[in-house]
Amino acid sequence: MRLRFRPVDTSFYDLFTESAGHLVRGVALLAEMLSDTADHDNVAARMREAEHAADETTHSIVKKVNSTFVTPFDREDIYALGSGLDDIMDSMDEVVDQILVYEVKVLPPELSEQVDVLQRCAELTAAAMPKLQSMKELEEYWIEINRLENQGDKNHRRILAKLFSGEFKAMEVLKLKDIVESLEDAIDGFEKVANIVEQLAVKES
Amino acid sequence: MRLRFRPVDTSFYDLFTESAGHLVRGVALLAEMLSDTADHDNVAARMREAEHAADETTHSIVKKVNSTFVTPFDREDIYALGSGLDDIMDSMDEVVDQILVYEVKVLPPELSEQVDVLQRCAELTAAAMPKLQSMKELEEYWIEINRLENQGDKNHRRILAKLFSGEFKAMEVLKLKDIVESLEDAIDGFEKVANIVEQLAVKES
Amino acid sequence: MRLRFRPVDTSFYDLFTESAGHLVRGVALLAEMLSDTADHDNVAARMREAEHAADETTHSIVKKVNSTFVTPFDREDIYALGSGLDDIMDSMDEVVDQILVYEVKVLPPELSEQVDVLQRCAELTAAAMPKLQSMKELEEYWIEINRLENQGDKNHRRILAKLFSGEFKAMEVLKLKDIVESLEDAIDGFEKVANIVEQLAVKES
Repeated sequence: MRLRFRPVDTSFYDLFTESAGHLVRGVALLAEMLSDTADHDNVAARMREAEHAADETTHSIVKKVNSTFVTPFDREDIYALGSGLDDIMDSMDEVVDQILVYEVKVLPPELSEQVDVLQRCAELTAAAMPKLQSMKELEEYWIEINRLENQGDKNHRRILAKLFSGEFKAMEVLKLKDIVESLEDAIDGFEKVANIVEQLAVKES
Repeated sequence: MRLRFRPVDTSFYDLFTESAGHLVRGVALLAEMLSDTADHDNVAARMREAEHAADETTHSIVKKVNSTFVTPFDREDIYALGSGLDDIMDSMDEVVDQILVYEVKVLPPELSEQVDVLQRCAELTAAAMPKLQSMKELEEYWIEINRLENQGDKNHRRILAKLFSGEFKAMEVLKLKDIVESLEDAIDGFEKVANIVEQLAVKES
Repeated sequence: MRLRFRPVDTSFYDLFTESAGHLVRGVALLAEMLSDTADHDNVAARMREAEHAADETTHSIVKKVNSTFVTPFDREDIYALGSGLDDIMDSMDEVVDQILVYEVKVLPPELSEQVDVLQRCAELTAAAMPKLQSMKELEEYWIEINRLENQGDKNHRRILAKLFSGEFKAMEVLKLKDIVESLEDAIDGFEKVANIVEQLAVKES
């Protein structure tokens, strides 16, 4: 057991980093859900827990904004960044929930391409959050996220074209379309967060 | 007949309360549209009127922002709140219009659950608007709206799972899916308004 | 060859006008894509170029914001307007791409009504951008855009009702629904831009 001698003051940077950490965990669960041998109920239960943990962090951010006199950025921007990160978790949770409640048994292999994109996005975002303190070396992050979002967009249209090709039954197409759209929402969410960070950097410069 | 001795100056608080009042009326019409014996043309015509009345109030808000020198909140926030309330009315109007133009005859009973959620949201929002003046006792409002939105989200996924279960024909699923998504847009709209109010309270504190 | 004697300083107004000019070109390509005799691959390739050119202008706007000390509006508003215009181009590019990758052969004639709406929106927006400098005579612009968006909304619901009427096969409906929704996103994008301009005018007044 470690003793704590100094009062703990989690900074906004720590909380954003924590929030992005939940996203890394969320993508890992998403990848697990897509594997052929996944126990859907079990993964979905763990995703729900991860989503609750992410909610806690978001609430801590909002509470800290309310109780802090001098904030490192405008209150609205902290709020936007916190809820932007939270929205991504919600979209990933939605994917897992849709696979569960729609009782989808076979997922086209193309979906893993989107999970790969999400994995890169989550890692980059988690690595970028601590850099908000110095506001340095962030440009590469948002440029790469934008590139990944473009890639995700191309994948998305190709997956939809496949779904509409006549290979799947109408009801299966409807289920899978909802799922791939939630995947795209998650990718778009990372772009939104990157845009907020870019605007913050513009303001600070 | 009552004589008016004092000049009438409708405040921003009155206008927001009026705007939320239109939403209470809109939900009532929505509930009527969903009843088995509803005359769709008749309800849709009255909804159109209610939507126009809501538009008038929104225009009054924008006009007042333009002509007032000192506003109680930032102009952008007044604008965001006004258009946030207006968006909800548009979504509810869309539901009624979709039921009419898609010529949907049988609506799954689960849809009323979402209208119940909307009814609670509209009442809470209408009760919260006058409190913007003191900015007090609003926390309960936005917490409850967030809870209702979560509930609506769960209902939404369950309804979709039912639509995709094979019980309905593909074309019927497409029509109903559009309708339940507009219902969800309206619920999301109430959450957006609650978030704006929460951010206002953060700024003012 | 013309000699340039004065240093060229493209203003923000010029860049916004340039950005709106790309939209005029984009709509023209969209109209071409919808014609019966269109070579889909060829039009899509030219649309991709037009979209890249629009991206360049957006990047110039962002770069100029970053390197300019005194901006004519708040940095965030310049950013919002620039990315608002860019989003419209993305939606129009998406329509062309969907027609290509979904291999849609027959497009219902009603789609041209939406392209007509987009054409009017693009022209009005291109004519409004230079007026940002004086902030005069802009009210007519945003009122007309709002009217066009309402018209587009009505068209949209009527087109969906037709798609759901039983005249088309389920898979065809799914493809066409995606396309008409991207068309509506583009129209909504013009309304968003008009709203930003309206809010700018409110701030400046």
